[in-house]
Amino acid sequence: MPISARNQLEGKVASVKLGDIMAHVVVKIGKSQIESVITRASAEELGLNKGDTVRVVIKSTEVMLQKD
Amino acid sequence: MPISARNQLEGKVASVKLGDIMAHVVVKIGKSQIESVITRASAEELGLNKGDTVRVVIKSTEVMLQKD
Amino acid sequence: MPISARNQLEGKVASVKLGDIMAHVVVKIGKSQIESVITRASAEELGLNKGDTVRVVIKSTEVMLQKD
Amino acid sequence: MPISARNQLEGKVASVKLGDIMAHVVVKIGKSQIESVITRASAEELGLNKGDTVRVVIKSTEVMLQKD
Amino acid sequence: MPISARNQLEGKVASVKLGDIMAHVVVKIGKSQIESVITRASAEELGLNKGDTVRVVIKSTEVMLQKD
Amino acid sequence: MPISARNQLEGKVASVKLGDIMAHVVVKIGKSQIESVITRASAEELGLNKGDTVRVVIKSTEVMLQKD
Repeated sequence: MPISARNQLEGKVASVKLGDIMAHVVVKIGKSQIESVITRASAEELGLNKGDTVRVVIKSTEVMLQKD
Repeated sequence: MPISARNQLEGKVASVKLGDIMAHVVVKIGKSQIESVITRASAEELGLNKGDTVRVVIKSTEVMLQKD
Repeated sequence: MPISARNQLEGKVASVKLGDIMAHVVVKIGKSQIESVITRASAEELGLNKGDTVRVVIKSTEVMLQKD
Repeated sequence: MPISARNQLEGKVASVKLGDIMAHVVVKIGKSQIESVITRASAEELGLNKGDTVRVVIKSTEVMLQKD
Repeated sequence: MPISARNQLEGKVASVKLGDIMAHVVVKIGKSQIESVITRASAEELGLNKGDTVRVVIKSTEVMLQKD
Repeated sequence: MPISARNQLEGKVASVKLGDIMAHVVVKIGKSQIESVITRASAEELGLNKGDTVRVVIKSTEVMLQKD
């Protein structure tokens, strides 16, 4: 079911750290990495584990740009 | 000056479309692309043009994950 | 493909207004309505039209609460 | 005092889970539910408890859409 | 009706620029200024005009920090 | 390296509270204060301490307005 969020990148979970409410997930995407903070509840329901293939999803209005 | 946003990826501007208030910018990052919507004012002040090297910046709380 | 965003509500598109860069979409959900601003590009690629069944998706970190 | 955020839905708190920094709050709205992650400080200052009537507030630029 | 968003600063509208879908509003707060992009619909419904006293509202999860 | 985020205010760290995943930081800016929630990892990497001079950075699409 396609979503309006324009940024969807496939990668592999490099680490999952569960906190009381939130979880910090690092995803390897090619030579880069993207970090995500989601609820612990979602991390558990998705069953996120190191090595899982996941898709990172980011709404374009959340993306900033820097230029020298 | 380091920023707390954990996601910072370098790429090249592939296109800039200016609207009345907002601007839609596509950035090539390796084999992926990231799309950003910023204000037209910022796009003009940064002088964003096709081919420019830019850094994409995303706060980790804005990043969602999908898993099959 | 399940997404970490915890808020997913089904509704029907009540109106779509396309701007130069962004689009403003109103979705009826039961007796409530939810308004969404996405890129015009996404609105066109999803082919959003009045009457379409859609799912509204919201990351829980974006939800504020008011209480008297 | 009206706020620019276009999404304001009234509901009842179904659960509050307090963490060290954040709090996870579930709100029943009609037959749906909305989940919110706010600071623990705000949850305490608002005195959020199960059964409280609250209003959920969401900026429209944070709302994504999915369509089959 | 108190809101969970922890940042609420009072200021005066310095300018309002209406676009097709969005509006760009500049608010003077003491010696600083804050810029806001909201929907044109909200800018019109709030009747925002230069000189109006407004309150700027920002969820703390949207605030980044830079340090040398 | 200039960033597209239009809101950049200089202040001094008034407090830092570290949680398991997130950190809650209060920044004094003139007579106002701004609160930020970032990852604990970023708070540690930036070495944030009370009294530090920091810059608060906020994307304009995250700023809401209230008016009586």
